[in-house]
Amino acid sequence: MRHHCYDRGMPRWDPRAEERLGDAALELFVEHGYENVTVEQITERAGLTRRTFSRYFTDKRDVLFAGSEQIPGVLSGAVRRADAALPPFQALLVALVDIGEWFADLVPHAARRRAVIASSPELQERERTKLAAVTDALAEALRERGTPTSRATLLAQVGIAVFRTAFERWTDEPEPADFAARVREAATELAASLAPAAGLATVVPEDH
Amino acid sequence: MRHHCYDRGMPRWDPRAEERLGDAALELFVEHGYENVTVEQITERAGLTRRTFSRYFTDKRDVLFAGSEQIPGVLSGAVRRADAALPPFQALLVALVDIGEWFADLVPHAARRRAVIASSPELQERERTKLAAVTDALAEALRERGTPTSRATLLAQVGIAVFRTAFERWTDEPEPADFAARVREAATELAASLAPAAGLATVVPEDH
Repeated sequence: MRHHCYDRGMPRWDPRAEERLGDAALELFVEHGYENVTVEQITERAGLTRRTFSRYFTDKRDVLFAGSEQIPGVLSGAVRRADAALPPFQALLVALVDIGEWFADLVPHAARRRAVIASSPELQERERTKLAAVTDALAEALRERGTPTSRATLLAQVGIAVFRTAFERWTDEPEPADFAARVREAATELAASLAPAAGLATVVPEDH
Repeated sequence: MRHHCYDRGMPRWDPRAEERLGDAALELFVEHGYENVTVEQITERAGLTRRTFSRYFTDKRDVLFAGSEQIPGVLSGAVRRADAALPPFQALLVALVDIGEWFADLVPHAARRRAVIASSPELQERERTKLAAVTDALAEALRERGTPTSRATLLAQVGIAVFRTAFERWTDEPEPADFAARVREAATELAASLAPAAGLATVVPEDH
């Protein structure tokens, strides 16, 4: 039956194939543990062939990172498009909100994906490598707006921290609604936590 | 001559051996590129033996990361010792200043070390893994002080960004003087960059 489908019955291009494979993979990773899942199990669960899998992904790890190579360019592009009059961190926040929905489409099942990644040192390493590339691209985009190198790196790292926090909170909601509100919330919360830094001399005295 | 030194003339324990090996390794990494340097070259430059090298380091990579497994515990310990009345980010800043000098001793030649690490994807990966462990330990220490999980993670990531910025600026100075001032400066600079976040609704409108 599957053989029949594959040879003649199934369309060569299934617009939902990638999504079905991604859904099946995440389900299986959560059920059996990432290490124990094979590509064969993923294609079987999705009711698709290995050949179809190979059209979208190189291996099972790729299901978790497909498209991530686009993130640095998309995010730094959004920073470049932000109103030139905005100070750097505000330009960065606007850019984060701007790409939020695109990013959510790129990373479906974000909460489950996070749990799978947390279960494997190899996946964590890959995730950190990806995040570092995004941070570098963001810092470069801020430098192009005139922010000095050291400050651009600091703000890029902090911007990524705000984005991760906002995105995690947003995807943990049962029915995610307003991503922009989550970015605002995380940035405002951080600003409030840092505010006493202005009077920091009392905490970290000059003659420490 | 070297043979003579090794067999009889040299003391079995040289209090400066570790430092000499570290100095020699960093010099060679910068001169020839990390990939091209052998442990033999390092010991030769330091005028010490392979056996002495093995007493302090497992391999040439270890010269760059020796002792780094202590950082998570030392930093989170400093957060635990910070005045219980301090809000979380202030406790974190006090802890960063507290361990600053210890950290500087642990990481000699910090600017050269950074350049070497930037030259190698493998070393960058190792550095990121190390930083992630420090960030996790810091978040855990903040949670113990009563900070909710998501905020503790955000503040830990931002605290590490401030520390890296302060440490890089400090070690880039020809004659590093006051690390506490660098931490204050980076935190104050960040707070100023974030301050408009409070009025962020004008930048990232509610109905975005």
